[in-house]
Parts: sequence; C-alpha cells; structure tokens
Amino acid sequence: MLEIGFTGTGDAAQIPVWGCRCTVCVRAKNITTFKRKPAGLSITSPNGITLIDAGRTDLADCYSVEKIARIILTHFHMDHVQGLFNLRWSEYDRKIPVYRPDDPIGCDDLYKHPGIFEFQKPFRELDTIDWDDFTLTALPLNHSKPTLGYVLEYGGNRLAYICDTSGLPVVTKDFLKNKHPDYLILDCAEPPSSNIIYNHNDLNSALEIVQQLTPTKTWLTHISHRFEHWLLHNPNTLPDNIQIAQDGMRFHLLANKTYEQL
Amino acid sequence: MLEIGFTGTGDAAQIPVWGCRCTVCVRAKNITTFKRKPAGLSITSPNGITLIDAGRTDLADCYSVEKIARIILTHFHMDHVQGLFNLRWSEYDRKIPVYRPDDPIGCDDLYKHPGIFEFQKPFRELDTIDWDDFTLTALPLNHSKPTLGYVLEYGGNRLAYICDTSGLPVVTKDFLKNKHPDYLILDCAEPPSSNIIYNHNDLNSALEIVQQLTPTKTWLTHISHRFEHWLLHNPNTLPDNIQIAQDGMRFHLLANKTYEQL
Ligand SMILES: [Mn+2]
Ligand SMILES: [Mn+2]
Ligand SMILES: [Mn+2]
Ligand SMILES: [Mn+2]
Ligand SMILES: [Zn+2]
Ligand SMILES: [Zn+2]
Repeated sequence: MLEIGFTGTGDAAQIPVWGCRCTVCVRAKNITTFKRKPAGLSITSPNGITLIDAGRTDLADCYSVEKIARIILTHFHMDHVQGLFNLRWSEYDRKIPVYRPDDPIGCDDLYKHPGIFEFQKPFRELDTIDWDDFTLTALPLNHSKPTLGYVLEYGGNRLAYICDTSGLPVVTKDFLKNKHPDYLILDCAEPPSSNIIYNHNDLNSALEIVQQLTPTKTWLTHISHRFEHWLLHNPNTLPDNIQIAQDGMRFHLLANKTYEQL
Repeated sequence: MLEIGFTGTGDAAQIPVWGCRCTVCVRAKNITTFKRKPAGLSITSPNGITLIDAGRTDLADCYSVEKIARIILTHFHMDHVQGLFNLRWSEYDRKIPVYRPDDPIGCDDLYKHPGIFEFQKPFRELDTIDWDDFTLTALPLNHSKPTLGYVLEYGGNRLAYICDTSGLPVVTKDFLKNKHPDYLILDCAEPPSSNIIYNHNDLNSALEIVQQLTPTKTWLTHISHRFEHWLLHNPNTLPDNIQIAQDGMRFHLLANKTYEQL
C-alpha cells in the first residue's frame, strides 16, 4: 500500500496571502485547515517517504531524516525547493538522492552547496525509474523553467501529478492518453479566464485536460486565493469526480487497483 | 523609544539541525524557547517596524504588512532573504522599500520579480541614512557575498549589528573604534577554533572584536549547534557583559542613552 499525502496545495503566495483581507485569506488566517502551503506531495511506503517537491519550509519539523528515501523535484522555482535550504546542512551520514528536471541553473546555490543532498542525473522526457515501492515516469510540462510532471504506478494504479503547467505539451498529452491514469492531481491556479494564462492552468484548461484524459478521480492543486475566491462564489460547478485538494488530505493506493480516501 | 527584538539568532542550519541528536538540538526540539531561527532583528518605533534581514519564513504570520516600514538586508544569502519569496506576492497597495548591499546578483529571481518590494539604490560603504525613527550607517564586512553591518543611532545610543563576518575590514574597524558603539550584536557562529574560520567569527575572533570596540554590552548571534554545544560544556567562560542572544529576546533603547532588557 502507498499513502499519498498533500504536503501543500497552494501557489507561490500561499494562503493566506500576506496582508490580504479577502474572504478566503481571512478564513485561512483564522482556521488552520484552510491554510495552503506550497504545492507538494508525500508518498509513504514501507520503504520510506518520497517527497515530490520541497516548498514547505517546516520539513525538518514534519519528517525525520531517517525516513526520507528520496526527493523528486518538478522544477527549481522557489516555491518548490525553498524547504531544502536549511535541510541541506544536516550532518546526517547518509546522502539523500534528489531527482530533478534538466535545469543547469537550479536555484541559487543549491548545486554549489548541496550538503546532504545528492542531485541525480537529470530525467530526460519519458524516462522511467523503478524503485521497490513504485515506478515513476517523467513528463515535460509547459512552464517558465524546465518542469516535469510524473506518473506513478503501483499495484495497477496509475497516478499522474501534473503541477506547474499551462496545458500539456503534445508528448505528454499523447503519453497520458495512452497510459490512461486512474487518478490525476492537476495544476489549477486560476479561475476561468478569457485571457491566455501563462505558466499555470485556469479552470478552463484544467477541465479540458480532465476531459482528454478521463481519470476516475481528479484533485486540483496549486490553488491561488483568486481561484478559491471564485469557487466560494460559484459553488457546485465542479463534477463529483473533481475535488479541490486540501493540505493534509491523504489517500491510499491499494495493490488491487483501488484507492481509499482517508 | 525603540524596541529591538531578535527575530532569529541561528545560523543557516537553524537549531535544531535536521536529524541531529546532539544535546543542543534535542533540547531545542523539545523546548521551543531553545529553537534558533535564521539571524535577524526587528526595530519597532512609533513609525512602524524595520526588519534587518528576512530569513524567517513565517514573517507573514508574525507581522502585518501595514506595519512594516522597510526591510534592510545585510546580504543575499538564503538564510537572510528566504522569507521574502512568499511575501513578495502580497497584493497590498504600498510598496515596501528594501535596502541592501551592492550585490548585482541578489538571490534567485528576487530582482526580476520583486512583487511588493522596491529594492533601493545599494548602500555604498559608510553611507548614512536618516529616517524619522533612527539613523543608520552601512559598514562593509568580510563574507563570501557583498555584506553589510549597520550602526543604528537613536537618542544618543549607538547599536552595531555585525552579522555574517569573519573579523572586520579595516574601514569598518576604524569607523567603529571612532564611533564607539554602546551596544554590539555580533556574529559568533563557531566555538574557539585553532583553524582559520572563513565567513564567520569563532569565539576567539568575536572576543577580539569586543576587546577592540569595548561596548557596554554585547550579544552574540548567528549561533550554530556546534558553538552552543561548546557553551554547554564550558559554562561561565563569557564575561558578564557578553550574552548569547535568544530568539524573541527584546530590549528598549531609551532617548536618554540607556537601554532596558525586557
Ligand atoms: Mn509553483
Ligand atoms: Mn513554478
Ligand atoms: Mn551569509
Ligand atoms: Mn548567515
Ligand atoms: Zn486573499
Ligand atoms: Zn545538533
């Protein structure tokens, strides 16, 4: 069994946005469960914990170093890697492998001073890697820095994590149509917009991707206060099999190709 | 009156260090008051709050945007600026001025996407600036990036904040000897060492600076778990007028050239 957890479901501003007095941000300020930290995932198996992205800056409080098997980065924007900067100075005697897209610049001095992190050879598009706990395939996305989505396969389950993208590149769309993921976690940073949105999906683009891939279940993530505000004023617009993810939400992928929400 | 507060007193690893089982880190894990966030200062006057450095990543929880008058950076290492990356996306309608050393690179994409921050013309060495609440002079330090210390003057009090330095450049030493600060907050990242320490003071270098400047009172900051561990095993080695700073510690500078610890 794999346990999938949302370590964060917010955009780079997080929710509450500093100084914002909108309904969404005031609610999140008052009620912890409505807060949104930077988007990321934890994948827990008997072999340890895999983090997809490290945008939370309290990872040292959340995870013991012994349990982290590996970290997988979607890209080197600060809201996805900022949590690594203090962790790297751990004096723990095992290096932690960090998987990543092919971005020669990375973020600030992470490559120069990786500390306990060991950056792995970058994924090329459609590279697949098999670990004891699950299989992962890297998929290129449309974003302002080299960015990867991932398909995770376990016990007949196929889960796609597609974060920080505006639509899908053809190679990724074709791969996913063919792979037919059962579960989809998808960037939907913005409310429906009549303008072209760069770097992220608005709800229109997200729904179009859902229609193309027809997963059993979709969670939307990388939520901005703008989108959440729109949702408050447009309730009941999403079909039942599309859910807005929340920080801390967890589900299990079982070996018999089913999932259970916790 | 000015209230000076230590927003953080730790090094880039912070205390507890991730995965460390030393006495210092275990104690800090169990007792919040022993934690050390990245080094920085708050200066509160009737006109608002000035932050020196922004290495804490929970600034949005700690300070309302309306009250921040300005931010003053010592340098662009991540442990001094990482807190700006989410704050910048605030949609507040006033820009917050950020003062800084002359570092054309800065940190990651902060210059490219400053959001609500307005980076000011860099300080040149010994530049002095007068605000309603206090006067500040910028002093070059010895560090691996362009780095400034600051002397703050208020009501006849002279407070020097000298963080992230290994010894002092001649220009700064001469200026400070002449200025004769009453209060000194000083980098002391490492225990006494027989090796040359780059980028930071060990206790020997810190004590040498104290002897040269003879302030009434000194607080040591940017403390690593190594130095704190050494202190646990070498109690009562510091003279009475040198204190190890703690996160949250505060004192007042009064108009009549005195201070009161809170
Ligand atoms: Mn992002
Ligand atoms: Mn991004
Ligand atoms: Mn530094
Ligand atoms: Mn530092
Ligand atoms: Zn808001
Ligand atoms: Zn320690």
